Amino acid sequence: MEIIVFRLGHRLPRDERITTHVCLVARAFGANSVIYSGQKDHSLEKSVQGVVGSWGGKFSIAHENSPIERLEKLKKAGYSIIHLTVYGMPLPEKENAIRNAEKAVVVVGGEKVPTEVYHMADFNIAVGSQPHSEVAALAVTLDRIMGGQELERSFESNFRGNISLEPAEKGKKIKKK
Amino acid sequence: MEIIVFRLGHRLPRDERITTHVCLVARAFGANSVIYSGQKDHSLEKSVQGVVGSWGGKFSIAHENSPIERLEKLKKAGYSIIHLTVYGMPLPEKENAIRNAEKAVVVVGGEKVPTEVYHMADFNIAVGSQPHSEVAALAVTLDRIMGGQELERSFESNFRGNISLEPAEKGKKIKKK
Repeated sequence: MEIIVFRLGHRLPRDERITTHVCLVARAFGANSVIYSGQKDHSLEKSVQGVVGSWGGKFSIAHENSPIERLEKLKKAGYSIIHLTVYGMPLPEKENAIRNAEKAVVVVGGEKVPTEVYHMADFNIAVGSQPHSEVAALAVTLDRIMGGQELERSFESNFRGNISLEPAEKGKKIKKK
Repeated sequence: MEIIVFRLGHRLPRDERITTHVCLVARAFGANSVIYSGQKDHSLEKSVQGVVGSWGGKFSIAHENSPIERLEKLKKAGYSIIHLTVYGMPLPEKENAIRNAEKAVVVVGGEKVPTEVYHMADFNIAVGSQPHSEVAALAVTLDRIMGGQELERSFESNFRGNISLEPAEKGKKIKKK
């Protein structure tokens, strides 16, 4: 399943760390790329690219000035639009339907999500109906739709070398290939 | 299962939003309370208490100056210590063992976690072996050990009234009891 995570309305400095976490969760839990709208943030892009450089795998980040138009294009190109919102339908009810998609855009909102997104979405999905965190909502959604497999996979080395970790009952085991 | 989430080394202003997300995830995913160490943060406590006031249920937050001593006491009192760290053992391997605990402290690290924590922990648990987010690690761990049930439960009203949401395919349905 090809997955793009689409982060709406990035604001500086407020969202600096939250959006970084959104991007790293996207990568670690099996998405292929992140697109973000709102303020362009070179330091965010550099830090995500830095993790890809050191830890391996393929993952890209890009900024988008016209998120609605871009989402409409992606929808036309056959992507399922999955919008994470506390107002949506419970994830467990929709998990199986979502899993059938060959390619999907998982939309992670910012402070104010335009109404168009709710209407354009193939699925408005709530990860619980309590306020918590877009980082948590994304992680649990990807974990559920990937069936937990993403946590087990390895990331191929790239030109800058590759850090990897070995599981340890106590302490730390770090490998550098 | 009684669960305390223990957030180590809160720093201001850097961790302001991340720790808030950790606390809200703890509440939404079924923990009973949060303890945090590091800098005392009135605004964090107020904002968590505000969510409890408006959205219901019982959940408390408390600051701790001596996290290691407190963790040792909790361990002696019969709590399983579950430390979330990227260096730990894969969550899927330990899920069932963790679920047997009657009460547990889930420790969420800050920048530098003291070695004592790794050694005191009954489980050092990695949610994937890639860098991502303590918010995501906590959410996925609680989701897995609660078997997803925490997302379905309702929160009882309290004296200040209670906001709740009804699932919607499109748009928003908000109830105020």
